[in-house]
Amino acid sequence: MKERINVGVAGLGTVGFNVAHRLLEQRQRLFERSGLKVDLCAVAEPEITPDQRDLFSKQEIYSDAGKLLEEADLDVLVELIGGLQPAGDLIKQALERGIDVVTANKELLAKNGREIFKTATANDARIRFEAAVAGSIPIIRTIREAMVDAEFECIYGIINGTTNYVLSRMARTGMDFDTALDEAREKGYAEADPADDIEGKDSANKLTIIGELAFGSNIPIDRVYTEGIEEITPEIMEDAERLGYCIKLLGIAKKSETGIDIRVHPTMIPTDSALAAVNREYNAIYLQSSPAGASMLYGKGAGGPSTSEAVIGDIVSLADQERDFCGARYYSSPGASLIPAPEVSTRYYLRLMALDKPGVLAQVTRILGEHKISIETVIQHGRSAGELVPVILTTHRAREGSVREAVKAITELEVIGRKPQILRIEEGFERE
Amino acid sequence: MKERINVGVAGLGTVGFNVAHRLLEQRQRLFERSGLKVDLCAVAEPEITPDQRDLFSKQEIYSDAGKLLEEADLDVLVELIGGLQPAGDLIKQALERGIDVVTANKELLAKNGREIFKTATANDARIRFEAAVAGSIPIIRTIREAMVDAEFECIYGIINGTTNYVLSRMARTGMDFDTALDEAREKGYAEADPADDIEGKDSANKLTIIGELAFGSNIPIDRVYTEGIEEITPEIMEDAERLGYCIKLLGIAKKSETGIDIRVHPTMIPTDSALAAVNREYNAIYLQSSPAGASMLYGKGAGGPSTSEAVIGDIVSLADQERDFCGARYYSSPGASLIPAPEVSTRYYLRLMALDKPGVLAQVTRILGEHKISIETVIQHGRSAGELVPVILTTHRAREGSVREAVKAITELEVIGRKPQILRIEEGFERE
Repeated sequence: MKERINVGVAGLGTVGFNVAHRLLEQRQRLFERSGLKVDLCAVAEPEITPDQRDLFSKQEIYSDAGKLLEEADLDVLVELIGGLQPAGDLIKQALERGIDVVTANKELLAKNGREIFKTATANDARIRFEAAVAGSIPIIRTIREAMVDAEFECIYGIINGTTNYVLSRMARTGMDFDTALDEAREKGYAEADPADDIEGKDSANKLTIIGELAFGSNIPIDRVYTEGIEEITPEIMEDAERLGYCIKLLGIAKKSETGIDIRVHPTMIPTDSALAAVNREYNAIYLQSSPAGASMLYGKGAGGPSTSEAVIGDIVSLADQERDFCGARYYSSPGASLIPAPEVSTRYYLRLMALDKPGVLAQVTRILGEHKISIETVIQHGRSAGELVPVILTTHRAREGSVREAVKAITELEVIGRKPQILRIEEGFERE
Repeated sequence: MKERINVGVAGLGTVGFNVAHRLLEQRQRLFERSGLKVDLCAVAEPEITPDQRDLFSKQEIYSDAGKLLEEADLDVLVELIGGLQPAGDLIKQALERGIDVVTANKELLAKNGREIFKTATANDARIRFEAAVAGSIPIIRTIREAMVDAEFECIYGIINGTTNYVLSRMARTGMDFDTALDEAREKGYAEADPADDIEGKDSANKLTIIGELAFGSNIPIDRVYTEGIEEITPEIMEDAERLGYCIKLLGIAKKSETGIDIRVHPTMIPTDSALAAVNREYNAIYLQSSPAGASMLYGKGAGGPSTSEAVIGDIVSLADQERDFCGARYYSSPGASLIPAPEVSTRYYLRLMALDKPGVLAQVTRILGEHKISIETVIQHGRSAGELVPVILTTHRAREGSVREAVKAITELEVIGRKPQILRIEEGFERE
């Protein structure tokens, strides 16, 4: 069981810089959670900026990643250069020296994964690549570990944020492809040259990796049928909507008796299916397997923060193998400071049964006002003089303790027929 | 690196029997995936049936789990008895002997987790409990490993299948609580005595475990505000729908500067939020964290097969720590048998631009028929004699190669203005 690991980061692009920065900034927190001291000892980038030089003043800085590997005493090499070369040789050399590797390099793994894994096994080194597929979604870990016992039947993945953003905006606003792509570029969801995303190649790389893991077979990427979203028009979007579908760029992998069916193309799916609700830059992977049935993982698929989270999870998991990951520390921590229920603040729904006569609502609202509870909506159902009729109220955020007191006072009103029913309302979900 | 582990299963209820049975049945597959020989060597159950005795004819069978622990030479004890005692003592004794433990015992972990983890750490043994929360959803692994670098802001969980089934059915059909509960019982989604589920206690156990892991604090379960779904009426369901909400029994845990807000109660949430689409017996956990933002995990939360999958994932992960989980074997496997794209069969959408004159549709449908492609819907947009108008078709399942040939023939028709647009339709999603 290691207590301390030396990490080198090769490549200081968006993800690499995020990882290196966060390893410095979050060192104490990682220690608290994992009992592990993660030491960033070196970084490599051909042209380092003065700001980076300042930030990494305590690290060795190399312009050549190969030299980093030779000179730094690494436990883990984090390869975030991307592309086939020189990343491929660098990873090979690291594994041959018995140094574990964490990478986000989907292209390399999809094309040369077989060779890389052979090298790792031959040298008793390990390679982790959660960040290569769908950023913060733990799909690799889920397939390899949690579902080690599962038989996969089919996999549907929205695994490219750029194309999902473009298609979501086209569907929502009616804008055409070029306008949506321009918007994606402006918002940072598309690269300057988004060809690999738009044409489906990025999705094909990720799908190949998922498919190989799930089906336990080598899949040559040039045999994965791949079609992009360039030809989707507003007219097609309208047709889809009329037919009850929405359009997503799906990676599809299915296993049947005749073989594996694996492809990437824009696909019409029913608007009430779970993947149809995956919008903007979000990714999701839907799995059908035996014996567990359907499951889905949803989250941000790209960007520095999401991807760096996956990289750091892999780094820690490589080191922290022999103990119960985070377990002991969590449970030996001090008791939490819990907010007492009456102090919690949320929105409320109230259902009163009130006598149908003038002034009732005034009495109720006066009590709510006295308890500083502000009303958002009131619905009074049909009228029936002298009888009990439902009055439905929703409130803005209010203190639970105040709501309980107000409801007690309301219950005591002569015009109220029985104890009001109360439910809490939550709206803190990220939505389009 | 172990090549072989001895496993004992204590408790042959639904989950325990599933796990033991599957360890026998899937031994070869587990070996292919993990390189690990998982040997079920003993089971314990107070009253064993003749069928079980036949199935476990090569295993030691104990009526007393304590004796199993004493006599069998275990690497891993799987505790699936449930409840506080004798399960608690059994786990403690196993850990004290340095035997790793896998359990699905949410009640025990929520109430005495702190003590159990101390025992594990003191004896250098490990405890895994993915199956204790939300069955096949890998939430424990995700929080502890994949998101080790994350700062959790809030967690919303639908983590009880019985109550979600009841609420989904009430919302969908208008039936009342008792009727929905009876239906849940008939379909096997509710136990004979469902009080712990209905009253929110089961959810509170699971939420406490999630909250302790995510926030790194000990949370006394008796301070988790807990309210069940017994008082939800069809009238309240109708009000919710009118207000744009649906009702879910949510476990809510939020961290703020003033402390942790943790509670379980029926909650109105917007119908367009991701959790609103989680119906029937499904579970889902929605996480907001920094830096990755929103993510969600969705799947079956209970039942023998889902829970046993989580247990088996934990068993293998305890043994297979030093190698790259499944990696080498996957990539050294033979090439997959891929189905060539033209042989794939799916549904299609076709958009043609056709001259608006009589007989056009007949020519198109004749060609489709000749290629054995059967039409599901046809939409002809507005008329404009002599000009090109869109004709939209969807097909039943057809062979891709045939569709391509048919489209080529259609394109050559004089009445067709330009190359038709084609999209594939997928409907293989599990839906309500």
